[in-house]
Amino acid sequence: MSNFFYFLELLGLIAFALSGISVAITKKYDLLGIFVIAFSTSLGRGTLRDFLLGDLPVNWMRHIEYIYIIFFVIFISKFFLKKNKYLKKIIFLFDTIGLGIFTLIGIEKGLAFGFNPTISVLLGTITATFGGVIRDILCREKPILFKKELHGTICIAGGISFFILKFFKMNESFIYIFTLIWIILLRWLSLKYKLDLPVFFTKEESKNLD
Amino acid sequence: MSNFFYFLELLGLIAFALSGISVAITKKYDLLGIFVIAFSTSLGRGTLRDFLLGDLPVNWMRHIEYIYIIFFVIFISKFFLKKNKYLKKIIFLFDTIGLGIFTLIGIEKGLAFGFNPTISVLLGTITATFGGVIRDILCREKPILFKKELHGTICIAGGISFFILKFFKMNESFIYIFTLIWIILLRWLSLKYKLDLPVFFTKEESKNLD
Amino acid sequence: MSNFFYFLELLGLIAFALSGISVAITKKYDLLGIFVIAFSTSLGRGTLRDFLLGDLPVNWMRHIEYIYIIFFVIFISKFFLKKNKYLKKIIFLFDTIGLGIFTLIGIEKGLAFGFNPTISVLLGTITATFGGVIRDILCREKPILFKKELHGTICIAGGISFFILKFFKMNESFIYIFTLIWIILLRWLSLKYKLDLPVFFTKEESKNLD
Repeated sequence: MSNFFYFLELLGLIAFALSGISVAITKKYDLLGIFVIAFSTSLGRGTLRDFLLGDLPVNWMRHIEYIYIIFFVIFISKFFLKKNKYLKKIIFLFDTIGLGIFTLIGIEKGLAFGFNPTISVLLGTITATFGGVIRDILCREKPILFKKELHGTICIAGGISFFILKFFKMNESFIYIFTLIWIILLRWLSLKYKLDLPVFFTKEESKNLD
Repeated sequence: MSNFFYFLELLGLIAFALSGISVAITKKYDLLGIFVIAFSTSLGRGTLRDFLLGDLPVNWMRHIEYIYIIFFVIFISKFFLKKNKYLKKIIFLFDTIGLGIFTLIGIEKGLAFGFNPTISVLLGTITATFGGVIRDILCREKPILFKKELHGTICIAGGISFFILKFFKMNESFIYIFTLIWIILLRWLSLKYKLDLPVFFTKEESKNLD
Repeated sequence: MSNFFYFLELLGLIAFALSGISVAITKKYDLLGIFVIAFSTSLGRGTLRDFLLGDLPVNWMRHIEYIYIIFFVIFISKFFLKKNKYLKKIIFLFDTIGLGIFTLIGIEKGLAFGFNPTISVLLGTITATFGGVIRDILCREKPILFKKELHGTICIAGGISFFILKFFKMNESFIYIFTLIWIILLRWLSLKYKLDLPVFFTKEESKNLD
């Protein structure tokens, strides 16, 4: 099982590095800037999770290969990002796969440290979304969590379905694969039909506080 | 005594959650955005304090009820924030109570870990103000610490009076209650008379460095 | 040797406090704001490094004198920053010395915790540059790492030369002094000749992703 998770981790790493690179490029950052953004997006999330859990030194410091992989992805992306006309869709796909993978990994780590489902789903959501928040703070963009894209909501929905399946004692591999597909499907639907969370406070209520 | 602190912690939690919610609403964030801001404002401060102390996993991960309370406060605020015409004053009051409470809690935790008064006052100030700094970074506002509102200065003044009273061996409960009232009073005075810290560098000196 | 490092740490502390103060002044922050920025710039870097290593409570909490030194530097700077017409050059010099010193300290600490050269150079670069990133986020400036100033690149170059000299078993003191001078020289050259990292992605490629 640990091999399977290691494979997922690498896949998610590459997905989020690509997502970071693509934002850094539009900001016209130089090579180091691109590395920092790619690094923060793909490893920042795990860093916060490991801080919260007290699992130090943080995970990536024990996996030097992660850093080499990020460099490799940057160089590959030079050729990869140039020609492809399906570029945006591919980046969206990678980003979504990463979202699903890191939700799973965060939940697993929470459970492994003996936390209950609520905290574990929260850790999963933090692991999946925090990299993007760092990326957006460093790039001085509005944090993606607060854009109407259901980013975090989908992680929570994925986490809840994870524990429902677990409650019914489904096969573990099935739970992982189902949750992953479920998260990807939700994200795709939310984009296709421009789903939003209902606005909780009306405009008038907002004005009250201005 | 620990019951008393737990009660204070809950009160401060609610106060800062409300303060976060009220900023998030003016930003027209959706439900998840509001939760993230409320969560960061009310629990982010303790997270930094526990990181600095090495007291991991951080406090809120062992108190799942905190998360439920934040949700509850968000739903209550839907009705609470709507009708009241004294809204701004109530939020200011809550914010100030939270400021006092978390200064006290930070100081106590610093002392419990064996640190001297200077570090403890610093921890108290960090605990009381850092949530607001995170909130403002996430909302892309100018961090409140740097607005001319004496926010942090008041925490330091409260911390100093705390240790003066302790030095004269006053009753512990008296010290807590006095410090709390003292901080609330200072904040109210600073708003009423628009007190500012003296500008340390003149405009001309600022230009020298531009 | 530990005395030598303590001396370096103090020198770097002062250098980065000055660099933080000079940015905070141009932002017209009040006394507390200046302290927070000076504090974050000079101690924030070590805080992230110690988090990553799990070396908690963080270093500065065990060195209360650091806080007093920052206060002292702020008061001194009142007189120091006023009259001098070589001001910008002096601040640049201090900033560069700090950059060199903290790269060295970060590398040393990484090695002391048993990490390999790649992770150690990364820690050195984080230690040297992260304070500036916090300062720029708090001041809502574009993070210096992403400005075309080769800030981080120079730390990496310094780190690499450190390990090349170590590989050839040079005298330890020589390695430290050489790396320090090498970093200062590189930074000065990069400013003088306006060196930039080659842009890795062309403008056209940037547009592809917009």
